[in-house]
Amino acid sequence: MTINPQIHVKNPHLDTMEEDVLYHFNLGTKTHNLPEMFGDIKFVCVGGSANRMKSFAQFIQQELALPGNMDNITDICEGTDRYSMYKVYFLSVYPGMGVPSISIMLHELIKLLHHARCIDFALFRIGTSGGVGLEPGTVVVTDKEVDCFFRAQFEQVVLGKVITRSTELDVGVSKELLQCSSELDDVPTVIGNTMCTSDFYEGQGRLDGALCSFSTEDKLEYLRKAYNTGVRNIEMESTVFRAMCRVCAITAVVCVTLLNRFDGDQISTPHDVLVEYQQRPQVLVAHFIKKRLGLIV
Amino acid sequence: MTINPQIHVKNPHLDTMEEDVLYHFNLGTKTHNLPEMFGDIKFVCVGGSANRMKSFAQFIQQELALPGNMDNITDICEGTDRYSMYKVYFLSVYPGMGVPSISIMLHELIKLLHHARCIDFALFRIGTSGGVGLEPGTVVVTDKEVDCFFRAQFEQVVLGKVITRSTELDVGVSKELLQCSSELDDVPTVIGNTMCTSDFYEGQGRLDGALCSFSTEDKLEYLRKAYNTGVRNIEMESTVFRAMCRVCAITAVVCVTLLNRFDGDQISTPHDVLVEYQQRPQVLVAHFIKKRLGLIV
Repeated sequence: MTINPQIHVKNPHLDTMEEDVLYHFNLGTKTHNLPEMFGDIKFVCVGGSANRMKSFAQFIQQELALPGNMDNITDICEGTDRYSMYKVYFLSVYPGMGVPSISIMLHELIKLLHHARCIDFALFRIGTSGGVGLEPGTVVVTDKEVDCFFRAQFEQVVLGKVITRSTELDVGVSKELLQCSSELDDVPTVIGNTMCTSDFYEGQGRLDGALCSFSTEDKLEYLRKAYNTGVRNIEMESTVFRAMCRVCAITAVVCVTLLNRFDGDQISTPHDVLVEYQQRPQVLVAHFIKKRLGLIV
Repeated sequence: MTINPQIHVKNPHLDTMEEDVLYHFNLGTKTHNLPEMFGDIKFVCVGGSANRMKSFAQFIQQELALPGNMDNITDICEGTDRYSMYKVYFLSVYPGMGVPSISIMLHELIKLLHHARCIDFALFRIGTSGGVGLEPGTVVVTDKEVDCFFRAQFEQVVLGKVITRSTELDVGVSKELLQCSSELDDVPTVIGNTMCTSDFYEGQGRLDGALCSFSTEDKLEYLRKAYNTGVRNIEMESTVFRAMCRVCAITAVVCVTLLNRFDGDQISTPHDVLVEYQQRPQVLVAHFIKKRLGLIV
């Protein structure tokens, strides 16, 4: 399957700009040779934390048996202090937390891939999430990204008007990823809807924030309603990720379930268990990349 | 003027919890002695970038002539890889970018100050923003935080229902800050409304994102409309900051204007000029703190 033969950047103003400064990446079309630096990128993974995305880059380098010293891998965005970006054979990016933070990153990433004239690449979001009615540690491959009203859409205000973009998935990468999971041990994986919220506490129905005006029963009712519409996990970036990429790229959201929200709100799983859970989507995506490269059949 | 004699944490569930893990801070009520660590805090500043908040902590330590080696200041949240927090006499925190990221930080910060039994403290947001009809480098002390429809409110979805919280300012700290600015050279300061958006590109009417469906004239019309309602700068965290703190704390948002959005969208100001601009709200808040402490009259 050929993916992303070409990026469709939807902004006519870009052609008229003499220079494009990707401010939050600390990169620019005049100061950097973007095609030379990034033209060979075939996979991009965003998510997790800065340290986790660095480890992931090192993990992939090891898995693909690439040459070079993994200890000396440098943060391409070091000068900006906002995002972290590591490049091995693929690009590993930390987009911060929440829709606004990942949206800035996506604008600049899409422009970066466009300026670098990248073709035939795949884009992944990996990371952590709260599970809804799943065993902790289960990987959810997202079928549909929904908002907190369970609608497969992303709303944004542009010049004082609300615009709505669909998050409907239009490709088969999620099925390909599910197939990958069946070839791996210890990566229990399901397909389900992922709900994206703009708050971790009240917005996800947690009882342990600084503010909370609802009861345990209210919370469970909302989680049950979410479960009944097909929601299997809750996180904070997926709708804008899908909505923006849908215009120009093929993507699959992969999230690891850290805790079952029906059982409690606080994250009390031991650190080493969490680390193992967090590695599961990395293992799955690494397997996908190796298959795509023909390193395994 | 006495401020914050007591924090009003608005969550009855907190009292029933045996332990409170502040997950994104890597702190907890059982693992850390929060009153001992943080009980003496009188000022909290959030904003900027991780490096800038570290520099700010070092700057304040120098300004207040506090003892100790400033080079060895450690990140209290180092283990979490999400936020950065530095403590000298006051607390300096980097909350990431956007409403969701700062909202998680605020839930945990308010609980932290509550658990630590802090009283009589002041909370500041400092940072950068796009200016609307102002000279670059002007500091805007926020009068009203407004959403992208110019309403002084913050909307959030809780359990599938939209709740609205006011961002109306109810104290005189902003006037006190403006008074401080008049005592300083080179910190041009105005009071104005601050508009909070959930996107840096389309959401703020920029023409240089990966997606853009409007004209230069559409953009200028929106900025003019914003200016006419009193908006003087645009950023991405202020409404939730005000709305959440309004319940329990006294705050003033201070933002430095990096560029005049009427003149252009890209940030092309030389780095050293930007650094000087970014320091202006720090200088202003440092002056405020010194006055409060009686170090200057």
